[in-house]
Amino acid sequence: MADIPARTELKVTTGPIRGSRKIHVGPLGVKMREIHLEPSSGEPPLRVYDPSGPYTDPDARIDIMAGLPELRRAWIRDRGDVEEVQQREVRPEDNGQLGPDRSGGVQPFPNVRKKVLRARAGMNVSQMYYARRGIVTPEMEYVATRENLGREMAREYKRDGQDWGASIPDYVTPEFVRDEIARGRAIIPNNINHPESEPMAIGRNFLVKINANIGNSAVASDVAQEVDKLVWAIRWGADTVMDLSTGRNIHDTREWIIRNSPVPIGTVPIYQALEKVGGIAEDLTWEIFRDTLIEQAEQGVDYFTIHAGVRLPYVPLTAKRVTGIVSRGGSIMAKWCLAHHKESFLYERFDEITEIMKAYDIAYSLGDGLRPGSIADANDEAQFAELYTLGELTKRAWDQDVQVMIEGPGHVPMHKIKENMDKQLEACGEAPFYTLGPLTTDIAPGYDHITSGIGAAMIGWYGTAMLCYVTPKEHLGLPDRDDVKVGVVTYKLAAHAADLAKGHPAAKLRDDALSRARFEFRWRDQFNLSLDPDTAEQYHDQTLPAEGAKTAHFCSMCGPKFCSMKITQEVRDFAKLQEVGLLNSTGAHPEPVEGRALPVDEGMAAMSKRYNEGGRELYIGAGGREHD
Amino acid sequence: MADIPARTELKVTTGPIRGSRKIHVGPLGVKMREIHLEPSSGEPPLRVYDPSGPYTDPDARIDIMAGLPELRRAWIRDRGDVEEVQQREVRPEDNGQLGPDRSGGVQPFPNVRKKVLRARAGMNVSQMYYARRGIVTPEMEYVATRENLGREMAREYKRDGQDWGASIPDYVTPEFVRDEIARGRAIIPNNINHPESEPMAIGRNFLVKINANIGNSAVASDVAQEVDKLVWAIRWGADTVMDLSTGRNIHDTREWIIRNSPVPIGTVPIYQALEKVGGIAEDLTWEIFRDTLIEQAEQGVDYFTIHAGVRLPYVPLTAKRVTGIVSRGGSIMAKWCLAHHKESFLYERFDEITEIMKAYDIAYSLGDGLRPGSIADANDEAQFAELYTLGELTKRAWDQDVQVMIEGPGHVPMHKIKENMDKQLEACGEAPFYTLGPLTTDIAPGYDHITSGIGAAMIGWYGTAMLCYVTPKEHLGLPDRDDVKVGVVTYKLAAHAADLAKGHPAAKLRDDALSRARFEFRWRDQFNLSLDPDTAEQYHDQTLPAEGAKTAHFCSMCGPKFCSMKITQEVRDFAKLQEVGLLNSTGAHPEPVEGRALPVDEGMAAMSKRYNEGGRELYIGAGGREHD
Repeated sequence: MADIPARTELKVTTGPIRGSRKIHVGPLGVKMREIHLEPSSGEPPLRVYDPSGPYTDPDARIDIMAGLPELRRAWIRDRGDVEEVQQREVRPEDNGQLGPDRSGGVQPFPNVRKKVLRARAGMNVSQMYYARRGIVTPEMEYVATRENLGREMAREYKRDGQDWGASIPDYVTPEFVRDEIARGRAIIPNNINHPESEPMAIGRNFLVKINANIGNSAVASDVAQEVDKLVWAIRWGADTVMDLSTGRNIHDTREWIIRNSPVPIGTVPIYQALEKVGGIAEDLTWEIFRDTLIEQAEQGVDYFTIHAGVRLPYVPLTAKRVTGIVSRGGSIMAKWCLAHHKESFLYERFDEITEIMKAYDIAYSLGDGLRPGSIADANDEAQFAELYTLGELTKRAWDQDVQVMIEGPGHVPMHKIKENMDKQLEACGEAPFYTLGPLTTDIAPGYDHITSGIGAAMIGWYGTAMLCYVTPKEHLGLPDRDDVKVGVVTYKLAAHAADLAKGHPAAKLRDDALSRARFEFRWRDQFNLSLDPDTAEQYHDQTLPAEGAKTAHFCSMCGPKFCSMKITQEVRDFAKLQEVGLLNSTGAHPEPVEGRALPVDEGMAAMSKRYNEGGRELYIGAGGREHD
Repeated sequence: MADIPARTELKVTTGPIRGSRKIHVGPLGVKMREIHLEPSSGEPPLRVYDPSGPYTDPDARIDIMAGLPELRRAWIRDRGDVEEVQQREVRPEDNGQLGPDRSGGVQPFPNVRKKVLRARAGMNVSQMYYARRGIVTPEMEYVATRENLGREMAREYKRDGQDWGASIPDYVTPEFVRDEIARGRAIIPNNINHPESEPMAIGRNFLVKINANIGNSAVASDVAQEVDKLVWAIRWGADTVMDLSTGRNIHDTREWIIRNSPVPIGTVPIYQALEKVGGIAEDLTWEIFRDTLIEQAEQGVDYFTIHAGVRLPYVPLTAKRVTGIVSRGGSIMAKWCLAHHKESFLYERFDEITEIMKAYDIAYSLGDGLRPGSIADANDEAQFAELYTLGELTKRAWDQDVQVMIEGPGHVPMHKIKENMDKQLEACGEAPFYTLGPLTTDIAPGYDHITSGIGAAMIGWYGTAMLCYVTPKEHLGLPDRDDVKVGVVTYKLAAHAADLAKGHPAAKLRDDALSRARFEFRWRDQFNLSLDPDTAEQYHDQTLPAEGAKTAHFCSMCGPKFCSMKITQEVRDFAKLQEVGLLNSTGAHPEPVEGRALPVDEGMAAMSKRYNEGGRELYIGAGGREHD
């Protein structure tokens, strides 16, 4: 597929996710998705969190060449602390187009803003700055409504979970959001030059979020494909997307992505800086890096991964590792440090970097450049030395009211995962943790979305705020569209499992609704309530293709003789008879090991009579049954 | 695909798993798989546990029509406690062939034994019986060698894990196996009428095992397909297989499976008994059930799932559940109890069932008929009431020296998983736990191998001995060949993650070998060391198809400019210089937050000189890198 020559050739997936419609909630019109259930269920529609933006809204007009509407433009302007400035001139090297060879160039985004926003001199436009001054922004209100999803319905639920010391509220108020931002326990990444973004929060006391990575690489470059992957990833639930493009066309690719993204976009600026010096790490300079930060800040990148914790003294700590340094950014900086035998300029210039970021409200994602790349290297001295430095840098960023999250590993066996979480909370003052997996074993390339999904669910439960997805292609190749979907859905289910275990008030609503649908053989509801309705239905139809099978009251594993509802009704009748005293109670409190007394004979006879009059319907198994 | 008419039409997958060969270790010729690494690695071949039997041995002659060689025949005979008896006559109802309609019949296995083995009058042939009398059987010796795999190599490794109170030895002796069997903490399921089986142990202090389910169903019946699934499942690592056939041809299907299986086969006898009464649960009788047990015992079934814990008094406890009773066996017995308002005949006749099982050395798998079928029902009163009854029954089985394992849930959110494990250990005296998943959320049908893989890895870490796989088709349809493979590989990686976290001495060897291969860009070694070499290579080739790319020293994600080995060498040189004192040490002990002192200037200058003379090779990233 070629780069985007004309509107007509650009394809992204639009239209509602089956069985649901887009709704707009509250004065800010917060976007959510509402899943409708069969009338027979007697249940109201179920609201679910929805990062997919206008692409799943049939009423929205999508024009990739123009970009998305600027939801936040007015909010930003109304604060009166920004000014419009001429955008930095785009240079050939920004797209790796040095020298005469201009091949592989991509068409520039047709609707680039010539004027960009920046904080007025001496001003700070970060959400943390406002929060610490008691200001509740529309962004915070948006987040509150978004996170509250379902909590009304959940009011009667009693909390059930182990939150490991988190402070999850029954109900999220804008003031709660402000307070979490103010103390650094949550962030809202939204660059003032990315007004298209729908505000979302990353923090331990909010729903666990997931990130998907896309981007051109040295071996494959295609903007249309990357824009399509962006839309595809958020359709299935990615809360943020990182553009990890390398090689050429980094600037133009990013412009296409940001202008069309309703979710925060993150980058690793050192990648582009490296391209500008022809890939020679030791030729990197502060000036080139700084210029790259401004370039990306003006485009609207919402968070920067900065590997400022890779300090010269820590590099030797990786000498005895099985897999040395596996983070790309970390390797670049280690290389630079060794070449010059100087301390990292990212570390030494950290406060200057912060100065720049607060002028656009860009959040830090402090990179773990020394994270373990194998089970053998997990939780070693190098990793934790860097972590404590990230803690030091977090406090320095907070001194300028700049938002921070912390990146985490990597490859970690299950018994060492909690130590990562606990040390991060302690070292970084509860700044949101943003982890890659972790992978819980090294031996399953091709299945690393699963080896890492295990670790992701666990560390999400322990307190990680955002999980960076891993696709089946990890370690092996570049993810295609299908890999992106599998990665996103795997991480959505891991994040949801974490929300359940933490006891998020509304998390259980969807599980219960789906389980009721399953038990009552409402197949369509079961499909529509799932994270991936298309795959669920497709799998069902492989066994029972007929339309009828979707309304038939039986399980595709057990065949047409089954009805779990019947026995449940029988059980409920039996229980009722006990309550009215016709049978002696047997349900009260089981004596462990001993078991209990049986119903008295009269009761048995009565029930037996009643049952046989009732017509002894056949019963075997249940719709939701497993295996036996 | 038709049932097996002729040898020629029957296809199973044979031949070695790529990059490895079958080896036979010790006097008993214990089968293992040896993975060979590239000479450049300078590493010896890696031995891995291998349940695939003769099918992956090029020297073995496979004849599905004749069945496998009888490895254990002599061991059994030599104990002198068995007699040969005429096999029970096979009746039409054994295959659901009642009445004139014989359609759907399958060809009987051509090589059925007319004479079967049974304990001589008054004898007990269970491994537990021998173990408790201090007898170390060849089965126990076989298991010891098999479990010891790699422990020799691992001797220099220091133990690293959290085993939650297990007693995993550095080295497994036959005496250790005997002791674990004697105290009921492990079982070796091997019916004396299944001499084809290769002994394996299920117990908390051995490697975590996995089970795969196959079998005809009411909606699909094809023996050739089921035999193929058996061979396919063990090829990828299934340690036991359950034949959950329902509908017709149950007897003949099972004969084909057992005669060709090198792994223990489990069944749920109530399924076949139910077919014999035309699917009417309330028409089940002790006599029909007893006759079915003998029928299956004589065929060689190694363990029986018996839902004897579903007692009449517990049934009402499921009345308020979201998903009632979802275990098929549990539903059948609940139905029977309600219909007759009598206590379960499985519970009342339990000691008679045990009498039968000890005459063939069949192990109990006490079924959890009241396990939760949804997150909402996890860890409720019904589930735990049954569990404590299973504990009572365990002791009753042990009184007759019959081996026992306990089946577990189901659907359980992460924060409730450990409670299941702890209660099971307490209630059942450390009898091996055998769990289905558990699924950690209900909302991802189509991905339930993953929702359950998360719970399986965790409960395996906590102490579960065997994990029953879940395929992507769970809740939706019948798994095909591909689903079986995905389910098995997913559960192998979950079981391995558990072994790593528990600190099994040899578990880490494979991770380390693969990580070294990854870091050194030995692509073929990385593929061959993985759980699924074919998929790993296929994914790699989608990005870089060229043969050269498999030997090239670069990562398919990063392109040809990368070499992580160079920087690692630089880092190691740098560290060495410090050791010899040319630089002041910086690697010793990091001061948290503060970071540490930089190398002294002379050191920097020296290194800078050395480095630049060394020729500033380009370096970026690493083969094993993730994302940034």
